[in-house]
Amino acid sequence: MPKKNINLHGSAPDKHVFALLLVDVINDFDFPEADQLLKYARPMARKLLRLKRRVQKVGMPVIYVNDNFGRWKSDFRRTVDHCARHGRGRDVVKLLQPGKSDYFVLKPKHSAFFSTTLDTLLRYLETQALILTGIAGNFCVLFTGNDAYMRDFKLFVPRDCTVSNTKRENESALRLMKKFLKADTCLSSRIVLRSMKGAVRSRSHSDA
Amino acid sequence: MPKKNINLHGSAPDKHVFALLLVDVINDFDFPEADQLLKYARPMARKLLRLKRRVQKVGMPVIYVNDNFGRWKSDFRRTVDHCARHGRGRDVVKLLQPGKSDYFVLKPKHSAFFSTTLDTLLRYLETQALILTGIAGNFCVLFTGNDAYMRDFKLFVPRDCTVSNTKRENESALRLMKKFLKADTCLSSRIVLRSMKGAVRSRSHSDA
Amino acid sequence: MPKKNINLHGSAPDKHVFALLLVDVINDFDFPEADQLLKYARPMARKLLRLKRRVQKVGMPVIYVNDNFGRWKSDFRRTVDHCARHGRGRDVVKLLQPGKSDYFVLKPKHSAFFSTTLDTLLRYLETQALILTGIAGNFCVLFTGNDAYMRDFKLFVPRDCTVSNTKRENESALRLMKKFLKADTCLSSRIVLRSMKGAVRSRSHSDA
Amino acid sequence: MPKKNINLHGSAPDKHVFALLLVDVINDFDFPEADQLLKYARPMARKLLRLKRRVQKVGMPVIYVNDNFGRWKSDFRRTVDHCARHGRGRDVVKLLQPGKSDYFVLKPKHSAFFSTTLDTLLRYLETQALILTGIAGNFCVLFTGNDAYMRDFKLFVPRDCTVSNTKRENESALRLMKKFLKADTCLSSRIVLRSMKGAVRSRSHSDA
Repeated sequence: MPKKNINLHGSAPDKHVFALLLVDVINDFDFPEADQLLKYARPMARKLLRLKRRVQKVGMPVIYVNDNFGRWKSDFRRTVDHCARHGRGRDVVKLLQPGKSDYFVLKPKHSAFFSTTLDTLLRYLETQALILTGIAGNFCVLFTGNDAYMRDFKLFVPRDCTVSNTKRENESALRLMKKFLKADTCLSSRIVLRSMKGAVRSRSHSDA
Repeated sequence: MPKKNINLHGSAPDKHVFALLLVDVINDFDFPEADQLLKYARPMARKLLRLKRRVQKVGMPVIYVNDNFGRWKSDFRRTVDHCARHGRGRDVVKLLQPGKSDYFVLKPKHSAFFSTTLDTLLRYLETQALILTGIAGNFCVLFTGNDAYMRDFKLFVPRDCTVSNTKRENESALRLMKKFLKADTCLSSRIVLRSMKGAVRSRSHSDA
Repeated sequence: MPKKNINLHGSAPDKHVFALLLVDVINDFDFPEADQLLKYARPMARKLLRLKRRVQKVGMPVIYVNDNFGRWKSDFRRTVDHCARHGRGRDVVKLLQPGKSDYFVLKPKHSAFFSTTLDTLLRYLETQALILTGIAGNFCVLFTGNDAYMRDFKLFVPRDCTVSNTKRENESALRLMKKFLKADTCLSSRIVLRSMKGAVRSRSHSDA
Repeated sequence: MPKKNINLHGSAPDKHVFALLLVDVINDFDFPEADQLLKYARPMARKLLRLKRRVQKVGMPVIYVNDNFGRWKSDFRRTVDHCARHGRGRDVVKLLQPGKSDYFVLKPKHSAFFSTTLDTLLRYLETQALILTGIAGNFCVLFTGNDAYMRDFKLFVPRDCTVSNTKRENESALRLMKKFLKADTCLSSRIVLRSMKGAVRSRSHSDA
């Protein structure tokens, strides 16, 4: 029986106007175009790891939103272990595997918001802006982006932290997110984490 | 990157017109009225276990929908272990702990459908009717019941497999579900599992 | 093609921490227990009208959330006209019919939040608390109340502005909302509209 | 007070495995790139009208899903009248204005499914496949497409019945929908309405 107002997170410091979302980076890469994708995913993983470390330093929550490959009966931690050991992209998974302080949300479909607890989690973290990263830029990331935009989150989609099967497809998706979802698609190294709090606060005054 | 049509469940036999839902039975019973509730929860647990075994025999999916007490960073299996060892109602939790073939869905709030993957899971299992059980009858079970009814599931809420703080409150909730949600509130032993398939099929012809 | 951030409401003054919700008061009262219900609905309508006028004076938005009786092809205004002229409860409907400055949201099922635009509308109005009124207290009002509570709205359900088929059922529903949904169920005349803004603001500091 | 199982539609013949969706065709075309878009929207309107007539002949439901431009207090019929008389694209709106037997659903955001009643309506119409048309192909149509796909609707997006600001953007969106959402993007004249029923039925046997 639930208590009045369930505290969805462990501790107050998790609350932050920003959150980093990693979409489908835990992956067995067991599909036809995996090799092609991995060519881009490997350098991305290194950039993303660097971003994740910076983000953690300033106390932003890190949220993995991931398929669990139909394993609705087992734990996600097992899926991580499996992909970090046996998948074709185990080097990528090993770099990016979630730590103890990271959140994870399992998604049954393409958008991270569809039929998941993400919306409620973000509400409790008091998130107003998302740094959206992961695989694939022109599918799960794109549709997660739109679902975030419809819920009025400010979006950052660093162009070096998302990949698609081809460069052309990735750039086309980034253009779409920039144009319609007002996403900032700068390089991850250009995101200035310290100044973000103020940026979002002032935004809400002007156009809410 | 997700595949086309994710197979949410392991194997075809899981598909069934019925599913058994256990709401918040994994519980640390760490709240003021716990002792009072446990007085009713203990006999309920034995009835529910019997029902669960019958249900498994005919191949119906068993789904635990449970609070995870704000622990969005750890696994549900650990929550089960914790509650089965240390909680005031550890005997109840031990009786009802999920097996390897059971599904579980974490819920952040009172209704099992709110901000969870339950709806999508049930769609894939091709569920048309729910046997709704658990704690508390006049809160999480009641509101889950309504959310199920709005999604057109036929409802069974066996009156000996749900409990509230008082008998009076439990009966009032059962009456409400019978009247407005058209729930069948017979005793669990009266539910005839074998004949259910036909019952639901014919229902959909007459009033869909 | 939608513009960036659609302004869901006409004018800034609509923004308010509170909103008044009228559930299913536009009704043809064409069902078996209608006469019994109307016995309670008539005095309720007068109280509710008084509350609505007070609410409008302080600039709170008034939102009708209503079944449209399966008429997904016609306008709600026509439904209002029909019920105000021909229904058994046309006196009730006439008293409470929506004005030009009132919002209305059509709902297909029992909860005002299920499969409707209400959540998005309230987000744009910046609503934090709801005064929940209407028909029936132990069904649509109750389940709307829970959906509001799960979304963290503070609830007022003035006990003289909601009715059920019997007094006993209505009181039982009010008790449930008071206990589990932390609803304030005082008389409508006791709601002090002027002081509300402060009350909600300070709440969010203490237990958000 | 709602009745048991509300009949969302007037009459049984509306039930059909297919439905035609017209997204944002009722439009005041009051935005910077409107003239450019209208160049494509005019020929599209004629094709779409032809498709609509064929669709109506075989008894498929026609559903307008449309922004209402923040006018949550007035009727959609008035918005139609306004756009058909005063907008820059009044010729387009006049061609495509909804008839008495058409459904309409107001949407507050880009996807036709977000915060609307569409999902519930389609469930009652027993729709399994959508013919998705309208404006703009790389925004509202695209994101509606994904939301439909996540709900397991089979998709047809006839390439001559959706437009974007440029041909290139439109084709890129169509490619995306073909690849990831498995959409059939043939010309509207190639859609064989008569054979559709069977096609969908057999699909559900093979890959549900």
